[in-house]
Amino acid sequence: MVTLKENERLDDLEIKGFRIIQNPLYFCFGSDAVLLSDFASPKKNDRVMDFCTGTGIIPTLMIAKEKGKSYEALEINPYMAEMAKRSAEYNNISDRLMIIEADIKSVKEMYPHESFNYVTANPPYIKADSGLLNDEDAVNVARHEIHLNLEDVISAASYLLKQKGGFAMVHKPFRLPEIIALMKKYRIEPKRLRMVQPKRGTEPAMVLIEGIKEGGAFLKVDPVLIMYNDDGSYTDEVLRIYGKL
Amino acid sequence: MVTLKENERLDDLEIKGFRIIQNPLYFCFGSDAVLLSDFASPKKNDRVMDFCTGTGIIPTLMIAKEKGKSYEALEINPYMAEMAKRSAEYNNISDRLMIIEADIKSVKEMYPHESFNYVTANPPYIKADSGLLNDEDAVNVARHEIHLNLEDVISAASYLLKQKGGFAMVHKPFRLPEIIALMKKYRIEPKRLRMVQPKRGTEPAMVLIEGIKEGGAFLKVDPVLIMYNDDGSYTDEVLRIYGKL
Repeated sequence: MVTLKENERLDDLEIKGFRIIQNPLYFCFGSDAVLLSDFASPKKNDRVMDFCTGTGIIPTLMIAKEKGKSYEALEINPYMAEMAKRSAEYNNISDRLMIIEADIKSVKEMYPHESFNYVTANPPYIKADSGLLNDEDAVNVARHEIHLNLEDVISAASYLLKQKGGFAMVHKPFRLPEIIALMKKYRIEPKRLRMVQPKRGTEPAMVLIEGIKEGGAFLKVDPVLIMYNDDGSYTDEVLRIYGKL
Repeated sequence: MVTLKENERLDDLEIKGFRIIQNPLYFCFGSDAVLLSDFASPKKNDRVMDFCTGTGIIPTLMIAKEKGKSYEALEINPYMAEMAKRSAEYNNISDRLMIIEADIKSVKEMYPHESFNYVTANPPYIKADSGLLNDEDAVNVARHEIHLNLEDVISAASYLLKQKGGFAMVHKPFRLPEIIALMKKYRIEPKRLRMVQPKRGTEPAMVLIEGIKEGGAFLKVDPVLIMYNDDGSYTDEVLRIYGKL
């Protein structure tokens, strides 16, 4: 049983029978969220925080993939947060996934220092002062750094993380130097990186990065993830990530 | 006419008839040097500096590829520096390539501030306190950070570079966070990056990175360069770089 509001749809995640409510007028999740849920590596008993959770897609997929134990997920938009809560109830995972309508910049007032084992983030990619702004305000907030910028995300993650806790983020490759510099500034050492190319021979469209708070300096770079074969079909690795292999 | 000393050989670079003298008991250039000479982008009239030049391979290949105007190249090992000079004479490019036996840490005493347009570096990859040390001292110095570390290289490049001058380096991917942090510290903004994988599906073995002194923050990430096809033959792009396509 699920109550859908106007323009909402219920999408099948094709794993564990989970579904997610989305509203195409607001924001639908993309391959970035799916890839981050695959890349992130919380341990079985971890308390995990997801920033900018939107529909709640990332913690929902991580629970489906049996990663982590309990999840809290922050979303600033009241409608999106309420919609994500309905998805968690539909999937019968509300005991493991708590959706909280909150601003990431308020984590210091909400949680004690070093209270999480792992933090994931699929934050807005584009600087607030650049790019065309979409008419829908919720879409703008999700895509542009209007409410929060990269430093807000990384400093909040560092505040929440225990020593040796993990942080995983998906972002645009053109901002990698800034990402690495900020992670180092907030003592989250980059430990694993993966570029994602649409095709062989095209520039990467995304970068996945994982860091460890107070970790030692050694970056493992994974082989590039190529999304599509030359004939336009998904590569085997993407089919595996999407649970189709 | 060329004078070869004991154990030396004269290798054909298969471009412009250029050859290079190498001594396998010391250090022979690898694909990293060839790829860096392709990746680096000095302009036609640039005054270019090459650090840790070894055999002089990088400026020799860049001259063959008609990049830059005049080259100076520093090498700390007296025998290697003398050998590189003989190669430059053999190739008849001594008027464009000056090999100097010198320590990179002395650039401040050797050159005025901001006197070069472009700097290349294929420095030692391995921290002095890690890895097995090779018996041959010249090999150790070339491979390990015995005489100079990453910060020495990047700070010296920043000192020599004019405003908006370029810096290109080849290094190991595991040190990328440190490389980016040091480039930013010395105001060389990372602008272009390329990972090099031996094969599709294997981890990158090298990273090529180019920065601009006082450049704006925007990193262009090139498609991964894959060296070998699945059947072990060189990929077309590598054949092109090696001048065989």
